[in-house]
Parts: sequence; structure tokens; C-alpha cells
Amino acid sequence: MISFACDYLQGAHPTVLQRLVDTNLDTQPGYGEDVYCQTAKEKIRTAFDCPDADVWFLTGGTQTNAVVIRTLLSPVQGVICAQSGHIAVHESGAIEYTGHKVLPLPAHDGKLDAAEVEAYLEAFYADQTWPHCVAPGMVYISHPTEYGTLYTADELRALSAVCRRANIPLFMDGARLGYGLMSHHTDVTPAMVAELCDVFSIGGTKVGALCGEAVVFRKGRMPEYMLSAVKQQGALLAKGRLFGVQFDALFTDDLYFTISRHAIDMAEKMKDIFRRKQYTFRPETDTNQQFICLENSVLQRLQPLIGFSVWEKADDTHTVVRFATSWATTEEDLAYLDSVL
Amino acid sequence: MISFACDYLQGAHPTVLQRLVDTNLDTQPGYGEDVYCQTAKEKIRTAFDCPDADVWFLTGGTQTNAVVIRTLLSPVQGVICAQSGHIAVHESGAIEYTGHKVLPLPAHDGKLDAAEVEAYLEAFYADQTWPHCVAPGMVYISHPTEYGTLYTADELRALSAVCRRANIPLFMDGARLGYGLMSHHTDVTPAMVAELCDVFSIGGTKVGALCGEAVVFRKGRMPEYMLSAVKQQGALLAKGRLFGVQFDALFTDDLYFTISRHAIDMAEKMKDIFRRKQYTFRPETDTNQQFICLENSVLQRLQPLIGFSVWEKADDTHTVVRFATSWATTEEDLAYLDSVL
Amino acid sequence: MISFACDYLQGAHPTVLQRLVDTNLDTQPGYGEDVYCQTAKEKIRTAFDCPDADVWFLTGGTQTNAVVIRTLLSPVQGVICAQSGHIAVHESGAIEYTGHKVLPLPAHDGKLDAAEVEAYLEAFYADQTWPHCVAPGMVYISHPTEYGTLYTADELRALSAVCRRANIPLFMDGARLGYGLMSHHTDVTPAMVAELCDVFSIGGTKVGALCGEAVVFRKGRMPEYMLSAVKQQGALLAKGRLFGVQFDALFTDDLYFTISRHAIDMAEKMKDIFRRKQYTFRPETDTNQQFICLENSVLQRLQPLIGFSVWEKADDTHTVVRFATSWATTEEDLAYLDSVL
Amino acid sequence: MISFACDYLQGAHPTVLQRLVDTNLDTQPGYGEDVYCQTAKEKIRTAFDCPDADVWFLTGGTQTNAVVIRTLLSPVQGVICAQSGHIAVHESGAIEYTGHKVLPLPAHDGKLDAAEVEAYLEAFYADQTWPHCVAPGMVYISHPTEYGTLYTADELRALSAVCRRANIPLFMDGARLGYGLMSHHTDVTPAMVAELCDVFSIGGTKVGALCGEAVVFRKGRMPEYMLSAVKQQGALLAKGRLFGVQFDALFTDDLYFTISRHAIDMAEKMKDIFRRKQYTFRPETDTNQQFICLENSVLQRLQPLIGFSVWEKADDTHTVVRFATSWATTEEDLAYLDSVL
Repeated sequence: MISFACDYLQGAHPTVLQRLVDTNLDTQPGYGEDVYCQTAKEKIRTAFDCPDADVWFLTGGTQTNAVVIRTLLSPVQGVICAQSGHIAVHESGAIEYTGHKVLPLPAHDGKLDAAEVEAYLEAFYADQTWPHCVAPGMVYISHPTEYGTLYTADELRALSAVCRRANIPLFMDGARLGYGLMSHHTDVTPAMVAELCDVFSIGGTKVGALCGEAVVFRKGRMPEYMLSAVKQQGALLAKGRLFGVQFDALFTDDLYFTISRHAIDMAEKMKDIFRRKQYTFRPETDTNQQFICLENSVLQRLQPLIGFSVWEKADDTHTVVRFATSWATTEEDLAYLDSVL
Repeated sequence: MISFACDYLQGAHPTVLQRLVDTNLDTQPGYGEDVYCQTAKEKIRTAFDCPDADVWFLTGGTQTNAVVIRTLLSPVQGVICAQSGHIAVHESGAIEYTGHKVLPLPAHDGKLDAAEVEAYLEAFYADQTWPHCVAPGMVYISHPTEYGTLYTADELRALSAVCRRANIPLFMDGARLGYGLMSHHTDVTPAMVAELCDVFSIGGTKVGALCGEAVVFRKGRMPEYMLSAVKQQGALLAKGRLFGVQFDALFTDDLYFTISRHAIDMAEKMKDIFRRKQYTFRPETDTNQQFICLENSVLQRLQPLIGFSVWEKADDTHTVVRFATSWATTEEDLAYLDSVL
Repeated sequence: MISFACDYLQGAHPTVLQRLVDTNLDTQPGYGEDVYCQTAKEKIRTAFDCPDADVWFLTGGTQTNAVVIRTLLSPVQGVICAQSGHIAVHESGAIEYTGHKVLPLPAHDGKLDAAEVEAYLEAFYADQTWPHCVAPGMVYISHPTEYGTLYTADELRALSAVCRRANIPLFMDGARLGYGLMSHHTDVTPAMVAELCDVFSIGGTKVGALCGEAVVFRKGRMPEYMLSAVKQQGALLAKGRLFGVQFDALFTDDLYFTISRHAIDMAEKMKDIFRRKQYTFRPETDTNQQFICLENSVLQRLQPLIGFSVWEKADDTHTVVRFATSWATTEEDLAYLDSVL
Repeated sequence: MISFACDYLQGAHPTVLQRLVDTNLDTQPGYGEDVYCQTAKEKIRTAFDCPDADVWFLTGGTQTNAVVIRTLLSPVQGVICAQSGHIAVHESGAIEYTGHKVLPLPAHDGKLDAAEVEAYLEAFYADQTWPHCVAPGMVYISHPTEYGTLYTADELRALSAVCRRANIPLFMDGARLGYGLMSHHTDVTPAMVAELCDVFSIGGTKVGALCGEAVVFRKGRMPEYMLSAVKQQGALLAKGRLFGVQFDALFTDDLYFTISRHAIDMAEKMKDIFRRKQYTFRPETDTNQQFICLENSVLQRLQPLIGFSVWEKADDTHTVVRFATSWATTEEDLAYLDSVL
């Protein structure tokens, strides 16, 4: 069945997989010491214009968030995030498992507001009992957010400024970063991400890889004991080449951005279809995920015909669902979607 | 300076301290094997009419919450509590440090609403992605709450029923339990607490002891490895008699309830003073803590004259403060308060 | 350079990789719900003759050990293992990070002795202070061990019997299980592993996969909250198919065993070469890893010529090194080794 | 029954208890802000000649070890200790519960050997795989040790020098520090402890207090977030005065040392009795704990007559037992002991 349920329904982009095939028999050392990891890191530094950054590869998004947050916080600190943030909701308590509290602030279409973050920080230290509370030691944002929305360059600048005034790192979870950067409606560039964040991830799993997330640390931000911490959290692959080869492929000839842009182009066309048929967006987004509010009777009619994700109950007669595009979405898929809506 | 800042400004109630003096040279085994721990446990079982309960003694409130919550949750569960709950706000992330998420629900004058808890539980399992979220494995309430308010018997019954339908324990943090049970305006009895809760604590520190909290587990609820878990969390005293003697004294001749009642009587008189002088309660409570909203100029005038706690900013010109009574509060203290207000 | 440094120097076995290519564009749900995971699990149950077992897939060995040990121990228990066990030495404290102590017992060529385990268990509970100590809640063995050695069927039966008498699970870390089961000198069968262990892993990373370990739980042993625990420890892949496809390929037409046997055949020939040239084994093993004690001058001569791992200092003039074969080792590789030794 | 089972069989030294009585009704702020904590800290700094040190108070020994070790180690480090060390054996895995591995080295009558520690550190970093292992980040010693033995000044100097060369802190668990410093046969002074260690504890529980351990951090070693960490681990008392008053009393007029010396004097007389009656020491110690090897028939004869602790099985017909003195031991107790042996 044709499906728009998510952006990880197929394996790897064929070019990525082909690179795995081409390099398969090369003899390479383990644990990230392979040549592909080195070239991939270099290509990422170039793509994001951050020549001094440290780059690391981890398997998946939750793991990445847990390793980054745990290694950058002191034992008594917590991490600020939007109430709808992935770490606050959908990671089975992975952050708390590392011993750290997630400090949720209001979400505005999935986004944090810089002024609210600053007010929170000020109010926190104004309260004399603060050492009895969990000190905010980091700000976590996802970009795109869990609702497919995007920060503007100004919003990012404001958040970054708040964090730097407070001397705490800004961490961007870029599980779908490609879709954010290739949006038709963004003014955020790769270099801006590297400049404004202290650490950010570049999702591979949802943007053309079989698995793998790159983590980019601003100069001086990577913990010196990173290898041991990664190993300790069970996140070190013996065949680190699996990450190296894939990210090398993704950052050769702009593949990461090209396939992200394809997904965005498909999403824009999908939006046109929904709009034309007067479906209700909740909200309309500029990335590869569209959240649509369906009458339950429509939902039941569509479920046998086409794949999508049930997101949340809207009210007793309506349900929010998700339709996502990816590098693998085709014009034929969209034509079929059009035909069944 | 005369102070109403909190209910732990003095040492122990003199009767409790005298018992420590009287028993000081008795030879007793360590780690809670002393005879006083045994008699204290028996007296607590009698006072709360729960002959089959297991009783344990721990040093302080945060420690008690951490040990109870951690031992009763499975590794992937979290604990529901009111947004204003002590474990959610004022324990430096002690619960998250044990690896468990605190799941905050709206607080109504510091209290959870049973219907909202039930709705939360239903919505949780209705969401197909729930294994990616933190499963609610316990309900935590404080009684009195952090705002000095009390559950009614009906409210407790409703919460207990919700928990039993969901097969998760109801845990009452009774750091100030005596003040709740001896309120002039409560219909909750000790036996009711033991019947409706699966585990509850009986605060000593804030009700006449130097330190120490009793934890009462409904039959079958105490983890079989309790001793090891208590030791592991650094909560096992070599001289366990320190708890045994104090709780034995507190539960001899109803001392615990008598001194709690004294504090309540003093609080009622204190409320009369504030009411007469037209101070603003926020909210008025039936226990030993009163939260008063002061104009900042009044606050500044009072601070050199009498002790109280600054609680939180109300608005730009007002501040909420706390005045608490205890077993040690005297009529003279109240007369002085009256004179300076 | 031709290398025998380890068994993860290349990517995947070509058949495994080809299956990833062949299935790449199939649309499949995420998080292990794909059809390949289902068929792979079924094939594993068949291969190990354990139709009622629960099978799970995780990324790597340390992660697997951490997830299994943490979910099967109570909060106050630790895990017995040989002093040379991987979890005791080479996992950066991953087990302790989950809050559990590793309880090392003497290693006999890397193996635990059943009688010593039983004596330890008896002595533990004979000590009246045992609740102040860490209770042994599991026995961990690796097979092959970290020294490439193997338990005999009788040794396994004895360990299993000890564990069942003590009612604690026996966990076999099978990171290189194929090489153990295909040894020319073993009487342990796959069905025996599934019968005698309560949980065991089947390593993919070191036996032909890009990454991935299968975990097999004896009926009733898998924690009911496994999915959440796996997610919480950052071990749940969105594209679970990566495991499903690879393990399906490895357990189709006995590929896992066939390629393991190839590595063993190569190792036997390698042993002949070392033996013929009078190198010193430490000890000689029946699996794919051979540990050789070299004079330091020989080590320095060989290092530029051929790849191997430096293992440990033997004495001031000698060093133990490791030579490993794998599915990728060829007769040409051996001929070259022969020529440089 | 007269008992030598341990040094925590009675309550507090009468002078300490009297101070609690005398100060009981003073109004003091909570959480260690009371005046007694301040004066106690100052007196400790004077007694140990370390005017710049930071002093903290915690409830018990295991808690102290857990808080100190956890706050001074990086997330990937472990703590070196003797195999017989309290943290390695008798704390129910409290250190591992904080996520850190205990790294045991051989014990020589309970003591670490500086040369062996240095060799371990060197060998650790000489192994190229060290980031896969747990890095030694602290050395823990107990003084007196768990066997009642003492480091000499030279031994302490050597350990301190090793730690400073390696730039890792030396932590002395002084649960019975008074008995060590007041030994008739030690050349270690209080000032030497403060000079050679980076952090040490001064046990109150076993030396005259009801509960409480002081922790002394060399200048610059105390974590800046100590209060929050202490709170987070459930170790912060609301009535911090309980510690302040007791330690103020213990360090007024040398009470701590005077009562320790009394216990030592009693122990020396006890040793004479055992020696005269030709009992077997295992080993004879210079502190307040004597370990005696009894024939099992003798053990059975003595058990109804006098209190002592069964320590460990020596062989099939002998058992090691412990006799301890304390501030509360009297000449009459010794005479009785003499009469029953």
C-alpha cells in the first residue's frame, strides 16, 4: 500500500546504499577510526561552514539526545524544552534515565519563545530556594519541531543570545534537519545553525540513511571523554564505518540537501492537494510533515486505501493525522493520494 | 527574633528529646534492629489502624520520596503528581536522579483531581505510541499539600479508587501529616489514610522530631529487598534507634497528634489575626501554614520585625509569603505577631 | 594491508548486503514492526529450536548487555561474571551506569566455574550482613569468551543447573556465538544454548552483519515492558528493518553457521601456520581468535607487514597479540600471513 | 548484656546530647544555615589545621561516600579502592547506583599499596583500549580500614603523591577517624590528613554522635553545586542544626579526640586480656576494633555471655569475630570480658 505514514518507510537512499556496497570489502579499523568517518566529518564541517567543530556519529535520535544532554549537563542540571519536545514526550523517559530532569516550557506550534526562556531563567535564580530546584543547564530545541514547524533566523538568533547570556548551551535536535534547511520558506542556513547552536544533530535515519545521526559540537564543547561516554551508553558501533560511509555519501555532491529538497517539493505539492480539497491543516507547515484534521468517518474511509499516521484525538468526531514525504516519495504516490482523498 | 518562617526552627519536642536522653545509654543493636524501632512500628500500626502494614524509618522527606518511588516503580514508569508537588519542584531532581520521570498534572490549590488523573490514564493508553512515552506507575499526593491545603475524605476515596482500577499505588507524602489530620476542618482520619493509600509517610522532622520520617506500606506493598534498597540509597542509619526512640515517643500517648493539634490551634488564631487585619490569604488553609499576599512595602516593613518565608512573586508590587506554626509556637509569639502586623 | 586485527574489518557479508539492496524500497513500518523482523525471529526460533522464545534486536553488544542486565535484575542486584568478562572490563562501565554492580569471579581461560559460582552464592547468603552487600541476581558468561575459549556442554549444564537452583537467570553473551557453535571442537549445539540459558544474544556485528545483535529470551523471561526499556536506553531503531533484513538473511539457508564455519576453518589453518612456525599460543583456542605471545622484536618486525591487535603486555620482552579470522578471510590472506611470519 | 559488638550500641556521648538539649529551643534557620553548623565548621578547620577547607555535614557513611564520589568523578570515571573497602563490599552497591564503577585493588590488611596504585594507573593508560575501560578518577581509602588497621604517615604521603602526580583526588573515609588519630601507635596527625587528602570524612556516628559525618574538602575541591547535589541524593536535613550542634560539641575542648582516646585506651587493655588468654588476633590492630579467631566451640560458649560480632568464617572449625570499644566502654565492661573469656 502506498504510504505517507512517516519518512522512514524505506531503507536508504539508493546512492547511500550503493556506497555501502562499493566500500563493503575495504579493510578498515573499527570504532570510528575508519577513513570514511574522517572524510564524512570533514564534509559536514564544510557543509555547515564550521571548520573547527567536532563531529560524532551515533545510531539514533533518542540515543543522541541522551548522550549529548547527559554529557553537557552537570549532575544537578536539567534541560529546558518545549512541552511538545521529543525528549519531553516520546523518548520513554530516556533523559530522566540519565538522571536529568526535562524542564518543559510552553510550546508555540512546537517552538520555544526566547523571551519566555529568558524570563524563566531570570525567575529561576530570583527564587531564593533555587538550589532545591533543578537548575536549567541547557536549552533543547528541535528543528523542524515535532509539529513540522521551523524557527526563523531571528527566532534562532534570539534563543542563541539568551543561552549565551546565561552561559548554557543551545542544542538543536536536527533529526529532520535537512527538511528544515531545504524548506521553501526558511531563512535559516546551515552555517547559521553551526554558528548559533552549541551542539546540533544532523539526522540520517529520516533523511536517506539506514540509521545514524551526526552530532556537531561547536569548538570546545565536545566532552573530552566523549568516546568513553558513548561506549558507556551503549552507543559505540564496532563497525563505525556504517556511519562514516553513509554520511560521506550524504554529504558528497550535496545529496543530503538534494534529497531533502525533493521531499519538500513533494510536500508542497501534497499541501496543494489537501488545500484544493479543503482539508484542515493543524497547522500547515513548511516541511515534509503535514498534520491534517480529519472527520473520523473520513479517517475510516481512508485507512484501507492509503498509509498515514494517527497523531492525536482532536475532538470526539475529529482526529489529527500525519502525512509525511521523504526522498522516496514520487509523483505517482501524490497522484494516488489525490485520487483517494 | 520571633519567627514563623517554617515548622523546623527549633529542635525536637521536649518529650521526644527527653526520651533520647532517657534511652541514651541502653545497649541496642544497629540498623533498625533496636527495640524502640519495633515498639514505634507497633504504635504506628495501632494509631493508623493497620495491623498488617510494614513500617520503615528514613531520615528526611526527599530521601523518603526517592526510596519509595524508586522501589515501587518499574524501570520504565513515572509518577503522576500535581504541578506544584514537592517532588516536581523542590527536590533538586531527586526523583529524576533515580531514573524516573515526574508526570505533572494540573494542581488545584496544590491538589490532584481524581477525574483528571483518570482521564490522563485513559488518554495515555489510548495513544498507540504509549510505549514510547513514560507510563504512569504511581500517583503521588502530599497531604497537606505544598500550599497547606487538604484533600477531603471523598477526594481521597476518589483518587484511591482511580489508582486501584488502574492497579497503581497511591502514595501520600505526609511530611506534615499530623497537621492535616488534626485540622479543625478535615474529615480524613488516620485509619482512612492507611486504608486508601498504598504507601504513606508520617513526617517527623516537621512535627516534633529532630529528623526522621516513617513510611507505612499497605500489606504486601513493601519491596522484599527494602533493607538493601534503603542502604543503597544511603538512607540506612547505623543508630536506627534515633528513629525508633523518637517515633516511639511521638506515638506514645498521642503526642504526635497532640502537638499537631497545638500547631493547628495556633494557626487558627493566627488566621484570625490576619483576617482581622484584612490581610489577603492565598489561599486560606486549614493547616499550620498560611500563605499571605503582601504589598512589597509591607513586606519590607515586616522583615526586620518578624520571621517569615518569602514564597513567590505575586505581581510587580506584591509578594506571597508563608507564616507557619508548629508545636513550639506560643500565645506570646502570636501576640507579638499581632503587634507588628 | 592484509589484516587479522579483528572480525569486523569489512562491512557485511555480501549476501546480507544484497538482501538490504533487494528489500531497500519495500515499504515497511518502523520500530521492529516490519515483516523482516518477524520472519527473522521465526527463523532464529527454528535454528535454536526454541519455538516459544521471545526475540529482540539491538544495535551492539554493550547495548545488548546493558539492556538485558538492567531489565532482568532487581534494583539491588548485581551480575556475576568472570574477571575477564567483557562487561567487567571493556564496556566503559556501561553496566554500572545502569546502577548495577558487576560481581567478578575468577576466570579460567575466560570461563566461570560452576562450582565456584555455587560456592559464591552459598557463601553470600551465609553471611548475615548480606543485605548490605550486592545480591547476585544473574550469571553472565560469554561464549566464546573474551579469550576465544568455549564452555563444554557439561560445563554449560552445570552452570545452568546452579542458576536454576538459585532461581537466577543465566545470560550468555554470544557476540561471537556462531564461531563458538561452529568450532571443530565443541559439543554445544544451538538447541542446547536455548535450553540451558535463560537469555542469550546472537552477535551479528562480528558474524557478517553491519550491526545488530539478536537477543533470545526463554519463554516468560522477556520483561513485559521491553519496548519501552529499549527505547529508554536509546536502543530502538526507527528503521528496525535494518536488523530484520540482516538477521533474516543470516538465518536463511544457514548462512550464519556457514560463514562462521568458514572463519573457523580459516582459523584452524592459521593455527597450523603458527604451530608449524613454533609461535606460542596463549592459550590456543578452538574459535576464530588466536592469541599469540610475541617477542617484542618480532612484534616490531611484523607490525608494518600485517594487521593484528596488540592485546596485553606479557612481560618486559613479550607481548600478547590477537589474530582473528572472519567470513572475509581468504586462503590468500593465510598464504600471506605464512609468508611474513 | 554487656556487648562489644560494635561502636554504635549506645546513643550519643552525654556531652553531645546535652548540647542538643541546651540548644533545643533556639530558633535557627534550616538546611545548614544555623549558627551551630558555622561554628562547628570553624572548629573542624582549626582542629585539622586547614583554614581554607570547605566542610559539609551528611547523615551517614554510605551516603557520604556516595555523595563525595559521585560529585568528584566525571561520568566515565570509577574509584580505586582496596578489595576489602567498605564501598566495594558493604554498601549494597551504593556507588554503582550513582553510575560509577568501584575498581578494586589488592588489600594488604585492608590497605592499598601506593606502588600498586601507581602501577595500576600506568598500566591503565598504557593499554590502548583504555577509553573502553573505566578510567580511575579517584583513590578511596578508609582510615582506620575495615580491618581496624592504619596507614602510616609515610604510606599516606606515598598515596597522596601518587594521586597528585595523576591529578586525581585522594578520598579518606574517616568513619572511625578519631580512633585512628588517637591510636597509641600512629604517626598520622589531623593536619597531615587535611594536607595529604583532597577530601576526607570525620565520622560522627561511630565516635559519639547520634548520626552525622563531616566532609572536609581541600580548598577548591568542593563542587560548586554541592547543596543541590546533597539535596538531590536525599542527604539534606531540614534541621541541619542536628549536625551543627553535635559536631560543635565534638570539636569543643577536643571532645572528639578525648573520647576516641578513651576507646583506644580501653582497646589496648582489651588486647592485653586477649593476649594474656592466648587468643588469636587476625590481625592485631592499633585501633578500637579487634578481630579474634575463635574455635567454634568457644564461640558458642561465649555467645550467651557477651556481645560481639561474627565477622567471617576462618575455616571449618574457626570463626573470626569482632570486639569493639567505644567512648561508652568501661573498666567494668573489660573486667566482665576478662571473667568470661
